[in-house]
Amino acid sequence: MEEHYPQACPFCKIALAYPPDDHTPVAREPDPERVDPQCHLLLSTPLVLAFLDILPISQGHVLLITRQHAEKLSDVPAFPKSPSERSPSLWRRSFPHEGTTPAQALGFWMPLISRALSKTLEFEDWNVVQNNGHRAAQVVPHVHFHFIPRYPDDRKARTGSGKVDVGMLKSWKMFGRGAREELDDDEGKEVAALIREGLRVEVEKVMEARPKL
Amino acid sequence: MEEHYPQACPFCKIALAYPPDDHTPVAREPDPERVDPQCHLLLSTPLVLAFLDILPISQGHVLLITRQHAEKLSDVPAFPKSPSERSPSLWRRSFPHEGTTPAQALGFWMPLISRALSKTLEFEDWNVVQNNGHRAAQVVPHVHFHFIPRYPDDRKARTGSGKVDVGMLKSWKMFGRGAREELDDDEGKEVAALIREGLRVEVEKVMEARPKL
Repeated sequence: MEEHYPQACPFCKIALAYPPDDHTPVAREPDPERVDPQCHLLLSTPLVLAFLDILPISQGHVLLITRQHAEKLSDVPAFPKSPSERSPSLWRRSFPHEGTTPAQALGFWMPLISRALSKTLEFEDWNVVQNNGHRAAQVVPHVHFHFIPRYPDDRKARTGSGKVDVGMLKSWKMFGRGAREELDDDEGKEVAALIREGLRVEVEKVMEARPKL
Repeated sequence: MEEHYPQACPFCKIALAYPPDDHTPVAREPDPERVDPQCHLLLSTPLVLAFLDILPISQGHVLLITRQHAEKLSDVPAFPKSPSERSPSLWRRSFPHEGTTPAQALGFWMPLISRALSKTLEFEDWNVVQNNGHRAAQVVPHVHFHFIPRYPDDRKARTGSGKVDVGMLKSWKMFGRGAREELDDDEGKEVAALIREGLRVEVEKVMEARPKL
């Protein structure tokens, strides 16, 4: 167990606390308190997870990670190292869309997360950022992609306190911990529920559209 | 043709000039002058291409794009819209590793490009950045992932003029055109040849390691 989910890694803790559902990639009313600090889970599959960043640069700042521990993007294997790291065959039969490897699954989910986020939180522009190593501003040593909405300067927040959210990302220093405010758990819960609903819609569309390949 | 490769899009021009090779994803001595400005091609498959950024933020700054035109990451379809946009079945039989969709292929190639780049150009840290929309510093309206090496401040360039390469990426303004210097074509040719060799090694490893799934 320790080998696959090193407990010193906060993202491995999340992966362990939220095993994949047998039937759906989009989490169904997950309990945020299974880990501390709380985790506002969006997606949990045999290959990847997505959840809200607890130090959001802007509202709806999402992280997409591999379930399997890998420090940098270069450490993500092209194929699972052992059969136990592969998607269960039952899952692959009912949801083959994300591909068969962690890397393919990262790619598969990126457009879906982008669509769900931008439609739900009503923004046009966003950055996807993945940092490797200290000099590149990586903080948690488990590969993760940031999805960071860039709102117009005068845009009101979709939920929560109604504060103006400027969607600041002026400098790479923003990836440091000191520069960001902690996510409010009530707001996190509300935003995560919105995004999950958006993801469900996108997943359904994919399942309906899928041609016979 | 116009629908798939709008000629106003510089990346579609590149996609059209460099069709996929039947046998290998890594370009074999491609002629940089098939487009203007020159393109230092690394990778060309039915689903994606990779080449050097002509306005590098640091040496070895690579772009990974979908072959099919899509403006933002949210526009990358989960499945090809028509059979003609799918990988040719011959290709899929000889190289099934990248998956069956543009999104899966983006994910598949990210760790391989990361490994090839970091080993060949001998760096530890790098950013992967994908910008959507003006407010997020997107310049070319065709989805692309930047791979940006972050060298130590005192690191000498691996090739070329030997100038100190500081691997600067202090602010998002760096993604603007004015802030970056044009790639020297001789240096580009040399760096691209190194990276392609690194990619070939990584692709071979993947083909050897592939378990029977």
